[in-house]
Amino acid sequence: MTSELPAEFALIARHFRPLAGPGSLDLQDDAAVLAPPAGRELVLTADAMVAGVHFLPDDPPDLVGRKLLRVNLSDLAAKGATPLGYLMTVSTPRDTPETWFVGFVAGLAADQRAYGVSLLGGDTTSTPGPIALSLTAIGHVGSGQAVHRAGASAGDGIWVTGTIGDGALGLAVARGRLADASGHLLSRYRLPQPRVGLRIEGVASAGMDVSDGLVQDLGHICRAGDIGAELEARLVPLSAPAHAAGPEWLATCLTGGDDYELLLAVPPAREAALQSAARAADIAVTRIGRFVSGIPRVIVYGVDGSPMPLATGGWSHF
Amino acid sequence: MTSELPAEFALIARHFRPLAGPGSLDLQDDAAVLAPPAGRELVLTADAMVAGVHFLPDDPPDLVGRKLLRVNLSDLAAKGATPLGYLMTVSTPRDTPETWFVGFVAGLAADQRAYGVSLLGGDTTSTPGPIALSLTAIGHVGSGQAVHRAGASAGDGIWVTGTIGDGALGLAVARGRLADASGHLLSRYRLPQPRVGLRIEGVASAGMDVSDGLVQDLGHICRAGDIGAELEARLVPLSAPAHAAGPEWLATCLTGGDDYELLLAVPPAREAALQSAARAADIAVTRIGRFVSGIPRVIVYGVDGSPMPLATGGWSHF
Repeated sequence: MTSELPAEFALIARHFRPLAGPGSLDLQDDAAVLAPPAGRELVLTADAMVAGVHFLPDDPPDLVGRKLLRVNLSDLAAKGATPLGYLMTVSTPRDTPETWFVGFVAGLAADQRAYGVSLLGGDTTSTPGPIALSLTAIGHVGSGQAVHRAGASAGDGIWVTGTIGDGALGLAVARGRLADASGHLLSRYRLPQPRVGLRIEGVASAGMDVSDGLVQDLGHICRAGDIGAELEARLVPLSAPAHAAGPEWLATCLTGGDDYELLLAVPPAREAALQSAARAADIAVTRIGRFVSGIPRVIVYGVDGSPMPLATGGWSHF
Repeated sequence: MTSELPAEFALIARHFRPLAGPGSLDLQDDAAVLAPPAGRELVLTADAMVAGVHFLPDDPPDLVGRKLLRVNLSDLAAKGATPLGYLMTVSTPRDTPETWFVGFVAGLAADQRAYGVSLLGGDTTSTPGPIALSLTAIGHVGSGQAVHRAGASAGDGIWVTGTIGDGALGLAVARGRLADASGHLLSRYRLPQPRVGLRIEGVASAGMDVSDGLVQDLGHICRAGDIGAELEARLVPLSAPAHAAGPEWLATCLTGGDDYELLLAVPPAREAALQSAARAADIAVTRIGRFVSGIPRVIVYGVDGSPMPLATGGWSHF
């Protein structure tokens, strides 16, 4: 007999094979084969997204695909890594319409071109529950050059890329709690801009991406490095729509999630190198405070210069 | 303020950090750093498992963890790769009991020791639906030596490891449709035995693991290599409980899923090398047919020597 290819394989062939790149063995194998370029190490990171938690079931599927890829590319960017490719598992209800897959793949395809990555492998399954997605992204970095959460020293500056708080304000917009005439805030919430391309190897002494809230994530760098941090709220870069929202939203900006900007520790002697790298990548960088010796904690100085109480440090999924 | 660590981080610290290995940065970073050993390439594979599809919600959680890891190790084994480590995403309902995590991690810890791998990174999230798990396993293989689905030549023997059909019969046992006095079939269904350690580099001309049914998976090797296959049912190795189930279950054995044995193409001149490798790894190997020139299809000869009609080639999740 000729064994017929069942629907699962047709799904992969129709939608996912066009995403496949070198090393994927055309998704016709059970595994991908990959070697890092000479003198480079691989950097690997994985994130999951579930409908109803990380996106809404009726969100445009192309944005879901792009967000899934971009949150992982953001983690690679925070290590100073150049993206290579990704593996992905996709669990969908049996009644998921064909148009959902078409949109999801179109979004991934657009971002593959934008970021120079391709699909290396993965799995598709059905689920009796909401769409559940998982993506493992792979990049490369000079051997021994990866930027870690640990490594900040007293006197290093605290730096961020881009603007802070737009994602959290965008969520408030999506929930009807805030106006957004330009659509900027909602767009920032729906589609992260991973800071791929900012060369922080040999520049940042520590770093991570801001995904769970600036203050909480700064706390992670403090704990990893056994060091304190002083953050000046007046220095934190806000977008024009975030400024327009008014001072009552400042705490949301400092503690909300979904920024996907880079948070870096940079020694004063390397500030010029950071600014040069930022110009080369056309990415804004801003100094917002300093690391200080002492117990691992974050002190936030408000716009009036006095310590600012914050009800919450950030976002947890539990 | 000192930012408090929310529950998500406590969950990771309490349960998952003890699984972390070299390169994981103690799971306190957003990514793992990894370099293959000299002269080796990395092999990567990803599989998802969802409660209600791949396991039952009340299955013992230690078996769920071990199965998740083992189905991926089986894919690595089929490439001839030596396992290194894995990244994992775990999406669980908010009311998932602490005991589930304890059991799940205990199963993973036992298999980490058994297979010499460790956790490199991942993500934990909540879900409003069933438990959804995804695992990306990473191994290494001699550069250019990975075994692929494509590569079989006319005259190569078709070989399998272990016994075929126990997984599918174990599923029938779980559904109350078949007796299983020894518990062997149910155990084989619940806990795959990935054939890690069988050195097939330079021995097999093609290969994959049998997860969707022997006939269907053999069809994959035929399509990838543009070649035909003749399989002799009387040569297919069955366990004693599978024999005892009777001839009416033979078609189930040939087309059912969940075997996680290796299916290999081996040129006659390398049969002795395969048998030597099998003895060294204490893994049984059996020749069950041959590849033939012609269109990509699988002909199954029944026990009476005549072509055997099969209603289905294997298992699809859609």
